[in-house]
Amino acid sequence: MDWSQRRALVTGGASFIGSHLVDALVERGATVRVVDNLSSGRLANLSGALESGRVEFREGDLLDSDTIREAMEGVDVVFHNAADHGGRGYIDLHQVNCSTNLILDGMVFRAAEQAGVDKVVFASSGCVYPEHLQTDPREVLYLTEDLVQPPYAADNLYGWAKLMGELTLRAYVTEGRMKAASVRYFTAYGPRCPESHAVMAMIARALTDQDPFVIWGTGEQIRNWTHVADIVEGTIRAAEEVDDGSAINIGTMERTRVVDCASEVLAYMGKTVDFAFDTTKPTGPYNRVCDLTVCREKLGWEPQIDFKSGLHSTIDWYIANNDATAVAGSLEQMLTERRHG
Amino acid sequence: MDWSQRRALVTGGASFIGSHLVDALVERGATVRVVDNLSSGRLANLSGALESGRVEFREGDLLDSDTIREAMEGVDVVFHNAADHGGRGYIDLHQVNCSTNLILDGMVFRAAEQAGVDKVVFASSGCVYPEHLQTDPREVLYLTEDLVQPPYAADNLYGWAKLMGELTLRAYVTEGRMKAASVRYFTAYGPRCPESHAVMAMIARALTDQDPFVIWGTGEQIRNWTHVADIVEGTIRAAEEVDDGSAINIGTMERTRVVDCASEVLAYMGKTVDFAFDTTKPTGPYNRVCDLTVCREKLGWEPQIDFKSGLHSTIDWYIANNDATAVAGSLEQMLTERRHG
Repeated sequence: MDWSQRRALVTGGASFIGSHLVDALVERGATVRVVDNLSSGRLANLSGALESGRVEFREGDLLDSDTIREAMEGVDVVFHNAADHGGRGYIDLHQVNCSTNLILDGMVFRAAEQAGVDKVVFASSGCVYPEHLQTDPREVLYLTEDLVQPPYAADNLYGWAKLMGELTLRAYVTEGRMKAASVRYFTAYGPRCPESHAVMAMIARALTDQDPFVIWGTGEQIRNWTHVADIVEGTIRAAEEVDDGSAINIGTMERTRVVDCASEVLAYMGKTVDFAFDTTKPTGPYNRVCDLTVCREKLGWEPQIDFKSGLHSTIDWYIANNDATAVAGSLEQMLTERRHG
Repeated sequence: MDWSQRRALVTGGASFIGSHLVDALVERGATVRVVDNLSSGRLANLSGALESGRVEFREGDLLDSDTIREAMEGVDVVFHNAADHGGRGYIDLHQVNCSTNLILDGMVFRAAEQAGVDKVVFASSGCVYPEHLQTDPREVLYLTEDLVQPPYAADNLYGWAKLMGELTLRAYVTEGRMKAASVRYFTAYGPRCPESHAVMAMIARALTDQDPFVIWGTGEQIRNWTHVADIVEGTIRAAEEVDDGSAINIGTMERTRVVDCASEVLAYMGKTVDFAFDTTKPTGPYNRVCDLTVCREKLGWEPQIDFKSGLHSTIDWYIANNDATAVAGSLEQMLTERRHG
């Protein structure tokens, strides 16, 4: 696909995943508009992209009728990545805030159609999968897309909003009103990821020599941490290949326990400390890894970055960009809030 | 409760149920603001209420940021009755339109909290109940509120939006941000009800001497048709008695088959025609009747109007307010569209 002829809107494009998506679209030659309220995003995340001269940044709240209408003007493809979101501590403890995604997603889709946008690519989530399937870490389970069907059981209002976004987009396609794709992200990490997400929290704990090193839950929780470069590649491929509103897993099939991730972080950073398991803290499901059959079939591709390599380079990035004393001063707030500092 | 000291906002207050609610609040001495975009409502529905001098009518779209903010100013209680809705033909065939309720509901709750509103009463629906429970008309089933729990299986995006509205409101209460109640309406009918709803469709068919008289589905579908006066009484009692965001069924426990309703309509109107069953048309679930235990306990009340009496007076109203030739000219459109004429 010739992206040099396409104008993209990336909502939430100053955030962690959003800004990497902007970088990748710019690399492909696209013209990109970013609308972001900077509630978790940072303009610094876009510093490289802005130098290209092909990125327009607008600070604004997409819940405002005028802002969202103007955001869509002249756009071919919308990558809807904006969301009220945080890590596990956030989505368990701030349900009302997460519910505002129901408003936001509907408004984005509606404004896109009204502006004549050709396609919407929606950043959905592993949080749409039924919670009761994901309780046993000893089970070797790979979540296939079709496990999300009625009756539904999403993960918190964050997950419910993502599911409603998927269903709404599918209705747009069914009624012949717009093209669409939903990409279900699984536990992204990488440069620019905030400390409210588990991998980054661990790196921050290690950098500040936390001792004992606190792990939320038993540490047995399994995740398929997926590097943001793979998340972004899958998202752009979905924009190129999928029109029918279907949802596609974007994640690895590597099964990693939280405690093993922590051990690897400490080993790579040369720290020796004890673990303290805090089982009063939110953990999310104990077994969340995706299947990739649909991804391979529809996108002709799958995530490429193995967890150990991706983790090491992310640690290198974090150390190069953070000061241990500053991190130590706001660590607790970082773990549960959407934004700090 | 002394309603004379309270200022209420009724969203969708020019519509069928909304306008009856306005009438009942005015009778109790409340000051009422109505915001309605007149997409299905009619100003004529408010003619009596407006004469009281205690009703302010604003034509406007609540999806607009300014309109919704201004709607909340100085309001104590919000009755959120606005919705993109129609009868069965509408909600099955216009899923994208119904999905906009996800936006609307979230915006109303958010704006209410921001304006310091004390309580929101949300017009929810029997459409939140799991579809798979409601398939067998031979089963004597009364839907209890606790049957709505994860995993969820609501009825179309219309039902999903109602469910998300309930969950969001409960989160507001849990986080100590607002008081709330959800009232699950069951198949309302009565004066001002549009012909897209089954009972009114039958009366319209009879008035226009449709022969054969068309019934959607096998006619075996069971409903607990509930008179709008009872719907409204239950709604106001919920506003008075419920703060904790819980959801309460508002409907009768009378089990009436569609075909028996049609027979009664024809008998009362003195018509003799044959039935033609069109099983290609949307029917909704085949067995939907609510339980009233929670309603009786929390509201100290239950619906009072038996179906036969309510049906007869509704037929009298319809005949007095409609012309058979005009109805005949737009009947087909009336059955599936939100608004006609």
